[in-house]
Amino acid sequence: MNAKISRLSNGLVVVTDPMMQLESAAVGVWVNAGARNESKSLMGISHMLEHMAFKGTKTRSARAIAEEMESVGGFLNAYTSREQTAFHARVLKADVPLALDILADILTEPTFELGELERERQVVLQEIGQAKDTPDDIIFDYLQEVSYPEQPMGWPILGDEATVAGFSREDLFRYMHENYRAGSMILIGSGAVRHDHMVRLAEDKFGRLALGAPKEPEPARYVGGEMHIGGDLEQANIAYAFPGVSNVDPDFYVAQVYATALGGGMSSRLYQEAREKRGLCYTIYAFANSSKDDGVVGVYTGTGVAEAAEVGAVVAGEMAALAETATEEEVSRAKAQLKSSFLMGLERPSSRAEMIAGHIFNYDRVLSVQEMTEKLEAVDAAAVRRFGERVMQTAAPSVATVGPAGKLERYGIFAERFGSKWAARAAE
Amino acid sequence: MNAKISRLSNGLVVVTDPMMQLESAAVGVWVNAGARNESKSLMGISHMLEHMAFKGTKTRSARAIAEEMESVGGFLNAYTSREQTAFHARVLKADVPLALDILADILTEPTFELGELERERQVVLQEIGQAKDTPDDIIFDYLQEVSYPEQPMGWPILGDEATVAGFSREDLFRYMHENYRAGSMILIGSGAVRHDHMVRLAEDKFGRLALGAPKEPEPARYVGGEMHIGGDLEQANIAYAFPGVSNVDPDFYVAQVYATALGGGMSSRLYQEAREKRGLCYTIYAFANSSKDDGVVGVYTGTGVAEAAEVGAVVAGEMAALAETATEEEVSRAKAQLKSSFLMGLERPSSRAEMIAGHIFNYDRVLSVQEMTEKLEAVDAAAVRRFGERVMQTAAPSVATVGPAGKLERYGIFAERFGSKWAARAAE
Repeated sequence: MNAKISRLSNGLVVVTDPMMQLESAAVGVWVNAGARNESKSLMGISHMLEHMAFKGTKTRSARAIAEEMESVGGFLNAYTSREQTAFHARVLKADVPLALDILADILTEPTFELGELERERQVVLQEIGQAKDTPDDIIFDYLQEVSYPEQPMGWPILGDEATVAGFSREDLFRYMHENYRAGSMILIGSGAVRHDHMVRLAEDKFGRLALGAPKEPEPARYVGGEMHIGGDLEQANIAYAFPGVSNVDPDFYVAQVYATALGGGMSSRLYQEAREKRGLCYTIYAFANSSKDDGVVGVYTGTGVAEAAEVGAVVAGEMAALAETATEEEVSRAKAQLKSSFLMGLERPSSRAEMIAGHIFNYDRVLSVQEMTEKLEAVDAAAVRRFGERVMQTAAPSVATVGPAGKLERYGIFAERFGSKWAARAAE
Repeated sequence: MNAKISRLSNGLVVVTDPMMQLESAAVGVWVNAGARNESKSLMGISHMLEHMAFKGTKTRSARAIAEEMESVGGFLNAYTSREQTAFHARVLKADVPLALDILADILTEPTFELGELERERQVVLQEIGQAKDTPDDIIFDYLQEVSYPEQPMGWPILGDEATVAGFSREDLFRYMHENYRAGSMILIGSGAVRHDHMVRLAEDKFGRLALGAPKEPEPARYVGGEMHIGGDLEQANIAYAFPGVSNVDPDFYVAQVYATALGGGMSSRLYQEAREKRGLCYTIYAFANSSKDDGVVGVYTGTGVAEAAEVGAVVAGEMAALAETATEEEVSRAKAQLKSSFLMGLERPSSRAEMIAGHIFNYDRVLSVQEMTEKLEAVDAAAVRRFGERVMQTAAPSVATVGPAGKLERYGIFAERFGSKWAARAAE
C-alpha cells in the first residue's frame, strides 16, 4: 500500500491508494456519524438520510443520479452503521470525476423533497419488514439492545416504525448540518486513481461542506441481559455477546485472534465441537466487533428445537476451554487465517478503501501492511488465554434468541458459567 | 485474460489463468454434475456428497483437512448447484500445491465414514431449516418447482428431510463413481499460478479419477403455475418466472440485458416504478438464469400486505412496456452496467475461475474478453423488445409466494396479462 493523504483547507481528508494495474476504482465518502449520533426520537435518521441523499439535488433528480451513474456502468451505494455513514461508487477509471461530482452533489446539495420523503418512508418500512423476516440478521439488533440498553449504541440502525413515520425535512437538514462536516468526513479513492487529480477535484467539489465536526456520541455502557423473540421458525437462532475491546485497544488483534480460534473457521473449537462432533448446527461462528470506545465478542448459531438445549453448555464450555488451554498451534492457525484474509482483501479496491477509512478515523493515519501484520503476529497463546479469561469473568452475558428457543438453558444457568465463579475457579 | 488449457490423458481439463501481480490464487475443481443428475429418491445427494467430501479421506481426518488448510491461512469451500458441484480454495501462492493435494484427496479418496455421515445428516437438516427460515432464499426453490415440476430440474438442491434421512454410504460411493469422472471435471487456477506447475501437480494427484463422463441429465421442461406458502412474516415475498434461454442460446446476452433494463439497477424500470414512484418495496430485481438446455427470466420483490395488491400489475405492466418501448438509451445503460460488472469481476481470481468453468462446460474453450464484450455490445433495443415480446407470450407464468401474499392478484388475472392475448395485442 502506498496511500497518500491530504487535508483540504476546510478540514476534509482526501486519501488515495493507487493500484495502477486496475482498470477501475472505488471512490467513496465516509462520514464519522451514524446511529450513535442520533437522539431517541430521531432513531434511524442517519439511515433515512443515507436513503434521501439519493433522492435528488438542486441540479439532479433521483432518476438523473441513477441514470448518470449507471450509464457509465458505475455502481453507487451506501450504508449506515452505528458510527459511520458511507457513500461509495465503483467505476471504471475514466469515470472517477463523474463519481466525485455525484458524491459531492448528493452530500452537499440534497433537496430532501417532501414527496420523495413520504415515498422513501414506505421503502424504509419495507426494509424494516425485510430485516425482521431475516432471523439471522435481526437477532443482532436484539443482541445489541441487550448489550447496550437505553442508549444510542443499542438502538436499531433502521429506527422503528414510529420514528421513521416522524422524520421531517427539517429533521434531515438539521441532522445533516450537525453531522456532515468537513472535519469529520474522508474522501477515499482506491484503485485506478491519481492523488493530485483527486485532491484537485475534491477542492472544487467539496468546498461547500460546513466546517468543524459533530459532537462525540455518548460513551457506550455495556450492560448485558437477555431478550427472547419467538416466531414460527424452523430454527432457534441464538446469539451471545460479552464485553470486548475498542478499535484502539492494545488487545484489538488479540480479540480478533480469540474470535477466530473460538469460531472463525472449520478448524475452530466451536465448529469442531458443535457442528463436526455433535451435528447441532449448520452455522456457528464467533465474532469480535469493535467501536471507537467499546466492543463485544460473541457467538451466533442457528439450531433445532431439541438441539437448542445443548447450545449454552457447548458455547460456554468451548470458551472456558479456550481460556484455559489455547495452544500456540491453534493461535498460529487463527493468525494465518486473519493474515491471508487481510492480504486477499488488499486485492480489492473497495475493501482497501473501507480499511483506510477505519485507519483515519481511529489513528488519523494509514497503517502500513507491515505494521498491521506485525501487530497480528505479536499475538500469542498466552495473550489469547488472558483475553479469554477476561471474557469468562463477564458478570452479565448478553443473550438474544429468535425462534423456538424454549429449550435453551435458562439465563441464570448460562450466566453462572461465567462471572465471579469462573474467576474464582481460574484462580484455584 | 491469458488462460492456458491442457487436457490430461485421463480427460481432466486443467486451466490456468495467471494474474502474476497477485500474491494469492483461487484453485478449484468443477464437476459437471449436480442436483439435475439425481434420481428422485436420492434428491439432495449431490449436496450431501459435497459435505461428505470434507469428512475424511484414507489419509486425512475431517479435522486434519480443516487444520492443514487453515494453518496456512487458506479457505476451502464448496457449493452445489443444479448442474455443477464445485470445490475451491483460496490460498497464498506458496500454498497452491497443498490446495491441489487436498482437493485431489477429498475428490478421489473420501471414506464417507458412517459416523460422519450420521452427524452430517443432522447438519444438512439444520441447513434445510435455515433455508426455510430465509424467505427471500427459499422462495426460489418454490419458483423452480413451479417452473419445472416433477423433474430433476425442479428439485431442491438440498433435498428434503426424507431423502436426507435415507442416503447410505453405498449411495454416496455409487453417485460419486457415476458422476465424478475425469471427462466431466475441470481443475482451474486463477491468480498466482503457473500452468506447467499446475499440470504437473494435476497429473500426479488426479490420476486416480475414473474415466469418462456422467450421462446427460433429463432435458428440462418448463411448465409454469403457482405455489403459495404462507408464514407469519412481515413481508409478502413474491417471485415470478418465465421461459428464458439456455447458456448457449444466441440470445443469452439479450436476456441479460433485458433483465438488467427491467430490474437490474437503480435506473431500471421496475426499481423506478415500484420503489421510486410507488414506494412498494425495498428490494425488487429481475434476473435471467440459464442452464445448459433451458433458462428463465424472472422478478423478485418483497412487499407489504396491502402493497402486494399492486405488484402483479406493476410487474406485468413494466414487462409489457419494456417489450414495446425499450430505448437505445436504456439498453446502452444496461450494457454498460453488465460490462463494468464483468470487467470488475475480472479483477478477482475466484470470479475468473468461476467464469472459466462456465466457458469450458458450455463451449469447451475460454472465451476472450473481447469476444464477450463484442457479444454484449451487439445487443440493441430491437433485440430487447423482440425478446421482451417473446417473454410476454408466455402461456403459463410461474408465481411463487412466501408470507402474507393474500392480496396478490389471482394467478388467472396475472396470466391473462401474458400469453396469446398479449400476442394478439402486439400484432395489432
